[in-house]
Amino acid sequence: MQSRIPPDVGQLTVEDAKAVNKALGKCDFVFSALELDKQATRDLENKYAENDIPVVSNSSAHRWTEDVPVLIPEINCSHLEMIPTQKQNHGWKKGFVVVKPNCSIQSYLLPIHALEKEGYRVSRVIATTLQALSGAGYPGPSSFDMVDNVLPYIGGEEEKSEKEPLKILGRIERGKFEYYSSMKISAHCNRVPVLDGHTACVSIEFKDNKPSQEQAIRTWRQFTSLPQELKLPLAPTQPIIYRDEEDRPQPRIDRDNDKGMAVTVGRLRECNVLDFRFVGLSHNTIRGAAGGGILNAELLKAKGFL
Amino acid sequence: MQSRIPPDVGQLTVEDAKAVNKALGKCDFVFSALELDKQATRDLENKYAENDIPVVSNSSAHRWTEDVPVLIPEINCSHLEMIPTQKQNHGWKKGFVVVKPNCSIQSYLLPIHALEKEGYRVSRVIATTLQALSGAGYPGPSSFDMVDNVLPYIGGEEEKSEKEPLKILGRIERGKFEYYSSMKISAHCNRVPVLDGHTACVSIEFKDNKPSQEQAIRTWRQFTSLPQELKLPLAPTQPIIYRDEEDRPQPRIDRDNDKGMAVTVGRLRECNVLDFRFVGLSHNTIRGAAGGGILNAELLKAKGFL
Amino acid sequence: MQSRIPPDVGQLTVEDAKAVNKALGKCDFVFSALELDKQATRDLENKYAENDIPVVSNSSAHRWTEDVPVLIPEINCSHLEMIPTQKQNHGWKKGFVVVKPNCSIQSYLLPIHALEKEGYRVSRVIATTLQALSGAGYPGPSSFDMVDNVLPYIGGEEEKSEKEPLKILGRIERGKFEYYSSMKISAHCNRVPVLDGHTACVSIEFKDNKPSQEQAIRTWRQFTSLPQELKLPLAPTQPIIYRDEEDRPQPRIDRDNDKGMAVTVGRLRECNVLDFRFVGLSHNTIRGAAGGGILNAELLKAKGFL
Amino acid sequence: MQSRIPPDVGQLTVEDAKAVNKALGKCDFVFSALELDKQATRDLENKYAENDIPVVSNSSAHRWTEDVPVLIPEINCSHLEMIPTQKQNHGWKKGFVVVKPNCSIQSYLLPIHALEKEGYRVSRVIATTLQALSGAGYPGPSSFDMVDNVLPYIGGEEEKSEKEPLKILGRIERGKFEYYSSMKISAHCNRVPVLDGHTACVSIEFKDNKPSQEQAIRTWRQFTSLPQELKLPLAPTQPIIYRDEEDRPQPRIDRDNDKGMAVTVGRLRECNVLDFRFVGLSHNTIRGAAGGGILNAELLKAKGFL
Repeated sequence: MQSRIPPDVGQLTVEDAKAVNKALGKCDFVFSALELDKQATRDLENKYAENDIPVVSNSSAHRWTEDVPVLIPEINCSHLEMIPTQKQNHGWKKGFVVVKPNCSIQSYLLPIHALEKEGYRVSRVIATTLQALSGAGYPGPSSFDMVDNVLPYIGGEEEKSEKEPLKILGRIERGKFEYYSSMKISAHCNRVPVLDGHTACVSIEFKDNKPSQEQAIRTWRQFTSLPQELKLPLAPTQPIIYRDEEDRPQPRIDRDNDKGMAVTVGRLRECNVLDFRFVGLSHNTIRGAAGGGILNAELLKAKGFL
Repeated sequence: MQSRIPPDVGQLTVEDAKAVNKALGKCDFVFSALELDKQATRDLENKYAENDIPVVSNSSAHRWTEDVPVLIPEINCSHLEMIPTQKQNHGWKKGFVVVKPNCSIQSYLLPIHALEKEGYRVSRVIATTLQALSGAGYPGPSSFDMVDNVLPYIGGEEEKSEKEPLKILGRIERGKFEYYSSMKISAHCNRVPVLDGHTACVSIEFKDNKPSQEQAIRTWRQFTSLPQELKLPLAPTQPIIYRDEEDRPQPRIDRDNDKGMAVTVGRLRECNVLDFRFVGLSHNTIRGAAGGGILNAELLKAKGFL
Repeated sequence: MQSRIPPDVGQLTVEDAKAVNKALGKCDFVFSALELDKQATRDLENKYAENDIPVVSNSSAHRWTEDVPVLIPEINCSHLEMIPTQKQNHGWKKGFVVVKPNCSIQSYLLPIHALEKEGYRVSRVIATTLQALSGAGYPGPSSFDMVDNVLPYIGGEEEKSEKEPLKILGRIERGKFEYYSSMKISAHCNRVPVLDGHTACVSIEFKDNKPSQEQAIRTWRQFTSLPQELKLPLAPTQPIIYRDEEDRPQPRIDRDNDKGMAVTVGRLRECNVLDFRFVGLSHNTIRGAAGGGILNAELLKAKGFL
Repeated sequence: MQSRIPPDVGQLTVEDAKAVNKALGKCDFVFSALELDKQATRDLENKYAENDIPVVSNSSAHRWTEDVPVLIPEINCSHLEMIPTQKQNHGWKKGFVVVKPNCSIQSYLLPIHALEKEGYRVSRVIATTLQALSGAGYPGPSSFDMVDNVLPYIGGEEEKSEKEPLKILGRIERGKFEYYSSMKISAHCNRVPVLDGHTACVSIEFKDNKPSQEQAIRTWRQFTSLPQELKLPLAPTQPIIYRDEEDRPQPRIDRDNDKGMAVTVGRLRECNVLDFRFVGLSHNTIRGAAGGGILNAELLKAKGFL
């Protein structure tokens, strides 16, 4: 955090997250940012759920658990329907687990979803990301590697970027997620010396119905979804901001748009190979992490799950 | 320059480049790095040629002149055949003009050419570049824009990156360049806070004959061309270096490979959308500019044009 | 600015600052950030004053004008007494000019003043600054000079840093400024790749009465002045924040303390050569420029000059 | 290392440094860069010496051992006289230990020594350093702390900078080091995002005999010492390079002067508080570490100790 710890936060008591019983009767729900190994994380999150405490998780551990929704509220709020199934599967009464996806896909998945929702189905995506340091956690890369340099590799990031969208964009069929099979994504992930804000250079191809550039931009600018209708406190007024300037979005200038919750897009133009090219940007630790988790909780509250 | 001007260089007399007559009888040929407007550059370069002084140019002004070859010695030394035609067109006796291409394509065009030469024709290329500051000339971008930031736009760069390869890879037919029509290139060009060394994240698709990854890597590692056969002084021993590490090439570590004249490639892997993905890197002010010009001159000398 | 122009600001009409008559009857006072040559700046600022429009200037042009106060509200609000003299000198009725000092001295002059006010007179100061890019204006240094580098020189900065404090700390005697003669300052000014926030490493020597470290820290922490008493809107609650951590202040973490208006100090320790050493930091474009100008205006308003 | 491991180096066998017996009969001497705890380092270095293998150490462990010289060959080659005493103290025959000092003092200690040698005794020094990342070892500071930031603290560095020069500049009296007592040093040490090259902003005061600026610059430019007389291979031709430009030295431009072994100085000017101010720069991992160790070995060889 850039600023000093607010006094009232500084006075909070820190308890051991493993002592689930300490939370009983005190927490309506918990945010999880556990950094245990994946199995231990899943076990502990499940233990909270089992004890009637819903878990809104930013950890990646449960992303591929069969009955756990991976939520981006503007895209797949319909996946909340999986919660009753999940409860039933485990015999949980009030508790359940939802997670948020990897931070690096947010800068292009929301713009792509907006186009799809308007009827412009996207079949192929090549995305090259220039990702911020904060995405690596602290201390992250050595400063020696990030002066006069870029790193053309982030372990595991490309795989996550290619698979998670297929669950997020999928449907629920007979109590199970049907992964989205009609979109192929190829990701090149790079680390650059930027503090916050993942930038993505994206080429996309449409299945059949290709919009004009004007239609695409209008679609983005007019896009809103359930969080906006429900006026959730942290929901961005305009989830996708399109900038007309030829050199935008830029991470330092655009990452904080609408409290860091808006995705900023620019440079829509024809692609010589696929159909369109554009640049997308989102704040990886706000929209892509903590803010995304809070928006998930706000959605759950508004829909009666909390 | 990082180091001090060598004393013998410091004592050279600087003349006005426009005073062509001062060069008469003193210069076997000239290097041109003129930064006049394009027409004035072409006029002055032609004036040298007209005065029997060949011009090895790093300026972009003549790249689209009908009878001027755009040379990368390892790729299209056959384009030297255009020189007699050029002389004849102008009625020049000894003088002529050759140019080098834009610096940002070098990191992927040579690897692609190596594959094509081996029979693996490439039909489509999507390249996202992370380009160094020195490519913008001095002073280039404001430091204020390059701390905690990247710039997702470089004026004119994408157009050059998409068109120039088609001339370089073209053939000469009846004294004219036939541009290469069977490859489509789409470029996303970004500026990042790196001093030297352009990095490119590249996805490619093959026309029909797709190599295995092993074949592609072997092709790159074994690739040599005329500059290597002629043992030109500045020619890299191995024009394409393939690194096996998963986080290479990196600009600061790999840009100086083989005097800054080698292209370093890494991370060859399947692409979900096209066929292959890889990362390429070349030193933009050595291979991509001054060194490339010198190699052109060495080639011209070896082939009897100087 | 990092964020988008607020809509109501974006709709303001921009007028030519030279058209003083356009301001007549519309402006209670003006902020000046003129970047004309110094004489032209002084002439235009005077013209506003002559037309009954007070000028709160961030320009350096008038800093050495005999009857113009150089204000840091927490230090020398008594210099407002010069305004009636200034009006009288020019025959101005309502108009006058006040200026703010150079941004780089703010990180140590306020801590030094706080000690002096408590009776610990400082006789000698050696300050080495690590100054932010924004202090140079846009575009400022080339990004090529600010990657893997620092610049050990800022034109004119050391001279300003050594002279201006003597006017600011001076007294008014018979309608004239008596410059403070009992303090000597030596400044080494460097430019570093930081966006905002000037850091200063300072050694100081006391005249005779040297505080203990505890007394110095207490003095800083308890220091308030007229802007705090008047509860001026932009005045920091605590003008000097002392941090106990051994690695603070840091520009990115501490520059925004109290809306960017507080000076943050740390690392107070004995000096082997003078008496004490410490590190000071202030936000150069807020406290050191725009915010400082606004605080000057707020002070003038509160004291009945506007 | 920026470039690839040379093939012949890559084929060397790495042995465990603790297996002293493996070195017996194979090593004329060893370089030590041990990073064990200090006592373990001293014990192991002593064990080599005991086994007739001299140790040229870059480790800090033995810097305060009574009979171990801390060498900068251009300053205190007379300290080699301590070696026989050291051997005698331990009963060693051929083996002994010498060390090099901390890297951050090199940029100003050599210029100060040159003045002292010419008869201009320096009594007080205030030095503020802007130190490179490589001085912290790898990985060193987090990249997150070194983008848009500086760190005003380096653990233990100020203490070393203030004490080590007093041993280096001291004399040997009756087989013991008499520390130099007539100079006081005060150091402020900062970490900045520079890869290599420590910069120091220095104010100095002379005891009585103060040179003119011209005399000081001439003294620096003419300074040579034993390594130059002996024409040691790694000795810089001109150990101190003075640059006249007002914005030099700069780390990226000047650190590699004379193979990274020269100290570059600039900006000599009057100081308002002490006598003179200047900026010094030296390459911390060449002159300040590996290169300094090699020069020590070359000196020992030339003087018959190896």
